[in-house]
Amino acid sequence: MTARRRVRQLTTAGEARWLSDELSVEEPLEIRVGGRPLSVTMRTPGADFDLAAGFLLTEGIIAGADEIAGMRMCPHGAETSGQLNIVEVSLRGHRERALPERNFFMTSSCGVCGKASIDAVRSRSRFDVRDDPVTVSPRVLGALPGRLREAQRVFGRTGGVHAAGLFDAAGELLCAREDVGRHNAFDKVIGWAVTQRRLPLSSHIILASGRASFELTQKASMAGIPVLAAVSAPSSLAVQLAEERGMTLVGFLRGEQMNVYAGHGRVVAA
Amino acid sequence: MTARRRVRQLTTAGEARWLSDELSVEEPLEIRVGGRPLSVTMRTPGADFDLAAGFLLTEGIIAGADEIAGMRMCPHGAETSGQLNIVEVSLRGHRERALPERNFFMTSSCGVCGKASIDAVRSRSRFDVRDDPVTVSPRVLGALPGRLREAQRVFGRTGGVHAAGLFDAAGELLCAREDVGRHNAFDKVIGWAVTQRRLPLSSHIILASGRASFELTQKASMAGIPVLAAVSAPSSLAVQLAEERGMTLVGFLRGEQMNVYAGHGRVVAA
Repeated sequence: MTARRRVRQLTTAGEARWLSDELSVEEPLEIRVGGRPLSVTMRTPGADFDLAAGFLLTEGIIAGADEIAGMRMCPHGAETSGQLNIVEVSLRGHRERALPERNFFMTSSCGVCGKASIDAVRSRSRFDVRDDPVTVSPRVLGALPGRLREAQRVFGRTGGVHAAGLFDAAGELLCAREDVGRHNAFDKVIGWAVTQRRLPLSSHIILASGRASFELTQKASMAGIPVLAAVSAPSSLAVQLAEERGMTLVGFLRGEQMNVYAGHGRVVAA
Repeated sequence: MTARRRVRQLTTAGEARWLSDELSVEEPLEIRVGGRPLSVTMRTPGADFDLAAGFLLTEGIIAGADEIAGMRMCPHGAETSGQLNIVEVSLRGHRERALPERNFFMTSSCGVCGKASIDAVRSRSRFDVRDDPVTVSPRVLGALPGRLREAQRVFGRTGGVHAAGLFDAAGELLCAREDVGRHNAFDKVIGWAVTQRRLPLSSHIILASGRASFELTQKASMAGIPVLAAVSAPSSLAVQLAEERGMTLVGFLRGEQMNVYAGHGRVVAA
């Protein structure tokens, strides 16, 4: 999803010319549950049902696809923006009535955003990866960023989007998603797995194209993923959370080298 | 703010060694107003009062420093985490009572996060930059990223943080802040200006070390900043908002070259 745009390119030496540039499209997505607005996130349009399903799962609102009765794009607002920016989700049974009393009501895809108090920051995961016996070799890990980049189409053109990739333990890419928000890229990948009824994602690896933050670590944990890898640096709290949850956290996964920050027992030469 | 950590460095060729790495510290910050939790954001500790003041300003909760009666770090929770992670803000007069009825109550520093409906995404700015007559030369713009990098201390060590810099029209750096969240880096810089009573930031330039998103454009607009520059790509909605608000948006500001996406009349050779 890109938009063409005429831009003025200038140099410090005084040259100037018009050229055509491609921009990553960023649009708000409102997720409604049972007719009521739950959250808004700025996202790259596309895979919106995956995003909604992933968001509901990683925020602990649903445990799996069985709780989703249906999803549809709501046409409201499309006549002015030309975009479908509202996903209407209906949940089965009691869940809908329970929503407004929950603390993450009005939260967003940012993992912690919209949470009003620090106590609400850490979500409890239904899946414990502590005993996940999967191991992965440095060679398999080292090949992942290249496979994710191959699967990216937008990235090369705009340089402006984040990507997430879900891999099996052999390093095979199962799903790749891009977004202007890296939390959304994670939710889209996890949401794909939710709708494919693949949860918990035992023995899987999720790769972030950028840094590993607390929120991405938490999202991986909520989906039962034992190994989180990132092309850039992890934060202190990402490492701490990965240790608490028994996850493996790999950072600076670039070329032939990588750093293992937590759970290094799972990274062994084949 | 960095934390030392022993990490396992591995290569695809089978080499392995332990080394010491520095991580960017990421901790939650809860902003309380009048004793009630307003939002939580994941941030790099430090400049927390600037962050709180900037957040309140860019979310439209306050118009300036006069409305802040006081700020203090609350010791709650510090005994377990060892961190001061709660800022308690008291506002003057009627503002505190009005808060719970507002739509962005429970929102976070993510700009749009926590907003429950699309209609709440666009904040109205008190400041109109449309008629700001400032001009800036490509030469001045080209020098900004280097000055911001010079001012960064954490960045070189962890590679994991975002930075924002506030400059005057001559390219002099007035304030630089870093954070694991780029929205926080913007709020810290803008909050510094709020507490220095420098608003509106007419004829100023704000620089983002990464991409220019809708949220960063909106934050700049809320502070009355006419020129937003970014080292990486802008999104489609960032460009659209900059145009609507009469702002100048510069992207891919690298080395001796830059692209002007909106308001190019302000970028002229000196």
